[in-house]
Amino acid sequence: MSPERIKVASLLDKVMTAAEAAKLFENGMVVGSSGFTKAGDSKEVLPAFAERAAGEDIQITLMTGASLGHGTDGKLAAAGALKKRMPFQVDATLRGKINQGEVLFMDQHLSEAAELLHNGTIKMDLAVLEVAGIEKDGSLIPTTSVGNSASFAALADKVILEINESVPLDVLGIHDIYMAENYPYRNVIPVVAVDNKIGRRTIPLDLNKVVGIVFTNRHDSPADIAAPDVKTSAIASHILNFLEKEVAEERLTERLLPLQAGIGKVANAVLTGFQHSKFKHLTMFSEVLQDSTFDLIDAGIMDFASASSITVSADCYERVMGDLDRYRDKIVLRPQNISNTPGLIRRLGVIAINTAIEFDIYGNVNSTHIGGSRLMNGIGGSGDFARNAYLSIFVTQAASKEDRISHVLPMVSHVDHTEHDVDILVTDVGLADLRGLAPRERALEIINNCVHPDYRAELLSYFERACAQVGGQTPHILSEAFSWHIRLAETGSMKKAETVNAA
Amino acid sequence: MSPERIKVASLLDKVMTAAEAAKLFENGMVVGSSGFTKAGDSKEVLPAFAERAAGEDIQITLMTGASLGHGTDGKLAAAGALKKRMPFQVDATLRGKINQGEVLFMDQHLSEAAELLHNGTIKMDLAVLEVAGIEKDGSLIPTTSVGNSASFAALADKVILEINESVPLDVLGIHDIYMAENYPYRNVIPVVAVDNKIGRRTIPLDLNKVVGIVFTNRHDSPADIAAPDVKTSAIASHILNFLEKEVAEERLTERLLPLQAGIGKVANAVLTGFQHSKFKHLTMFSEVLQDSTFDLIDAGIMDFASASSITVSADCYERVMGDLDRYRDKIVLRPQNISNTPGLIRRLGVIAINTAIEFDIYGNVNSTHIGGSRLMNGIGGSGDFARNAYLSIFVTQAASKEDRISHVLPMVSHVDHTEHDVDILVTDVGLADLRGLAPRERALEIINNCVHPDYRAELLSYFERACAQVGGQTPHILSEAFSWHIRLAETGSMKKAETVNAA
Repeated sequence: MSPERIKVASLLDKVMTAAEAAKLFENGMVVGSSGFTKAGDSKEVLPAFAERAAGEDIQITLMTGASLGHGTDGKLAAAGALKKRMPFQVDATLRGKINQGEVLFMDQHLSEAAELLHNGTIKMDLAVLEVAGIEKDGSLIPTTSVGNSASFAALADKVILEINESVPLDVLGIHDIYMAENYPYRNVIPVVAVDNKIGRRTIPLDLNKVVGIVFTNRHDSPADIAAPDVKTSAIASHILNFLEKEVAEERLTERLLPLQAGIGKVANAVLTGFQHSKFKHLTMFSEVLQDSTFDLIDAGIMDFASASSITVSADCYERVMGDLDRYRDKIVLRPQNISNTPGLIRRLGVIAINTAIEFDIYGNVNSTHIGGSRLMNGIGGSGDFARNAYLSIFVTQAASKEDRISHVLPMVSHVDHTEHDVDILVTDVGLADLRGLAPRERALEIINNCVHPDYRAELLSYFERACAQVGGQTPHILSEAFSWHIRLAETGSMKKAETVNAA
Repeated sequence: MSPERIKVASLLDKVMTAAEAAKLFENGMVVGSSGFTKAGDSKEVLPAFAERAAGEDIQITLMTGASLGHGTDGKLAAAGALKKRMPFQVDATLRGKINQGEVLFMDQHLSEAAELLHNGTIKMDLAVLEVAGIEKDGSLIPTTSVGNSASFAALADKVILEINESVPLDVLGIHDIYMAENYPYRNVIPVVAVDNKIGRRTIPLDLNKVVGIVFTNRHDSPADIAAPDVKTSAIASHILNFLEKEVAEERLTERLLPLQAGIGKVANAVLTGFQHSKFKHLTMFSEVLQDSTFDLIDAGIMDFASASSITVSADCYERVMGDLDRYRDKIVLRPQNISNTPGLIRRLGVIAINTAIEFDIYGNVNSTHIGGSRLMNGIGGSGDFARNAYLSIFVTQAASKEDRISHVLPMVSHVDHTEHDVDILVTDVGLADLRGLAPRERALEIINNCVHPDYRAELLSYFERACAQVGGQTPHILSEAFSWHIRLAETGSMKKAETVNAA
């Protein structure tokens, strides 16, 4: 425990163990926790509460920024500690409990989660916030994410602080804490360029709310960085070629517009691809800064990156946290209701690249569900960005599992992003540019460019028969629309029996 | 022809007949036209072009603000004059051609249509704009709508003006023309209250583009106002009771927040209901001002209303246009990319009330398609508002056609608004408040409150069997999800045979 991390002497007697802090939780509480894409999460108190809950009949509603690290969501779910969880998760154990109906999950746009608190729909009893330190004025220095922490600090009745001594104190200054006013007094959010800082460096807090302070030395869970493979490289190449064409046709310049990229292999491959491109002075307006962001900054290709968290590999963590002065004027971390706010995404003209589970012939995208029922992770920020982007790009592999699953389908089994909000679809096979196209044109563009060859003929047949037999603006044969999903569930493959036998 | 409507003398020799103007159209042109919810549309030139096209092999792409009056879309469609139409329509003849695949229709968020022009994806050859007059500086006085006219005037290569002498010239001043900057230079749109005027009163125009001026004296097509009936009154009553509860629980005040209401019987019933409520100092931030808006203003209940058009009955038209000074400081008409812009809707905290064709047990809403394939009208502004509203409310009748059709279903056949964007669902049966609920909770709230009694048991059975047999976050039995739609197509009713016989 380093007292220099607590610059308010009266708080020193609030220091306690994680187990003691975990006793402050009460059954039925609504608890808010820091943590966004595994960064800046509670590393002691929530795990200690999971331990307590394993032997006790106690459940909470847990709202975070986004996903937690260290398997904490899994520990809480396994202990039966979660009644309801929002707004996002990526944990396999929790996912299982959600899909069994044992944990209620509210799958929310990340920009909107805190609105339910600010407008009084949900009352928050307790917040657990990781911080690097407490300033003399009682305000909090966040660590590797901001997420919803500023809202939780303002709106929770009680607050437990988790001081992470492994985060250097000179992290102070990389955050920009801005709180939008409550209705009807909400004003302009005055960001007109990605590098505008509009708020304060620390999170204000009424110290009377502090009921416990716990120390930790643990790092964030490292991001798993998958190297580009044949498919992700193909997808990245299609996107880069498309952007080069947009520059050649003078709709964009070599600086492009601010980039947003979801987490994962494809986003990583695309951003890596920019290193070998002719684009320059790039910027990012996204929700997470990944290894590839810092690689682009180091290579002098990216000028500035705005997000709500830093989620990087262990190596990159050392590189960034060990040399913060190098990045101080090139990055900013914002509250997620600023990093993801629709108005700013539209104003800045973001180029948004997000991952789909599947998409259909008219360009509807499923980002969240398997087979129409089972949750994968959640919508996260994809809707915040896709709905309001200058260019909304969705990517997925054309087929997977030895090509038994096609990711381009007659009709998606769950819609997260409608045809109205999707501009560009990309698979390893190719890219479909849907801008300005009506649904029947979109279908041909998608079938001709994105579908795995094993499925192209059948998908074209579906579309042509739907046009002939049913007609309409988006022709569908409802009795067949989900036949590929049903075939997969029954036979283990979306392919017709003869195709499987022939293979 | 009144020369006082053209204050630039050099333009007088551009005056021509509608038939002459129609000859300026060329095959394959992209044409933009004024007109938004039947207000301020081209009343001479487009109909004359339809006449010309009936005897000639000529087709155009037509982009408007929103729907046109005077059956013009039908005349154009019947003449085979439309290759592609965007972003919205409500005409029965055109709808038929779209559903037959003879006219391509791009169904767009109304806030976004002009973006395709501004970013260079679509080039506009010709614009036809209704105006009340031309000012000395060559700028244009719009009439009863703004729609996309400012964008069309700026971006079309050539412009035909249609001067409507039936619109009083003192309409000057009710419009607020603001053009957002192109990327990457877009700035804050500085509206922080519904009555903020941020632009100019007239639409700037390069007069070298003017290729023709046509005079007309025809009024807008009048709105059909349906009196509230038992069902719409019930829906309105549920909404008003809900809003009163929100006030009682101090999440809203008696001024509420700015209202948006779609066009139609239900919106009319709700707004009429406000006349007998205790709400006061109401405001509106919507896309269209209807009779009920002016009734509320006249009753002293509404202080100010912002929209992109005035679409009213013939009586109300006389009342408003005959006494514009009475309303001048209480209304404003904006371009549709301002009236409907996501950032302003979020900033102002709009309460959005829109009509659904059907919704499902998890709260997904279909606003546009019948049976998954056939277009009704289009998404219009519903997505602009629902996605970003403070409260997103969708309404529909629980059942229709002697209750043979349920509008609450296992799964919607087309998704325009996802579960993430829908807060409140209302039918004549009751209201479901979905805020803060996970999908399985939403299903019970909807089934318990919104479903017609004839369908409640079967819908509950579907949900319970889906939970038991499939599980997941949004349990669905894919082979049954559309069974109600399929049954309707096959038997003329969504009811099972035994239910029909019993009735």
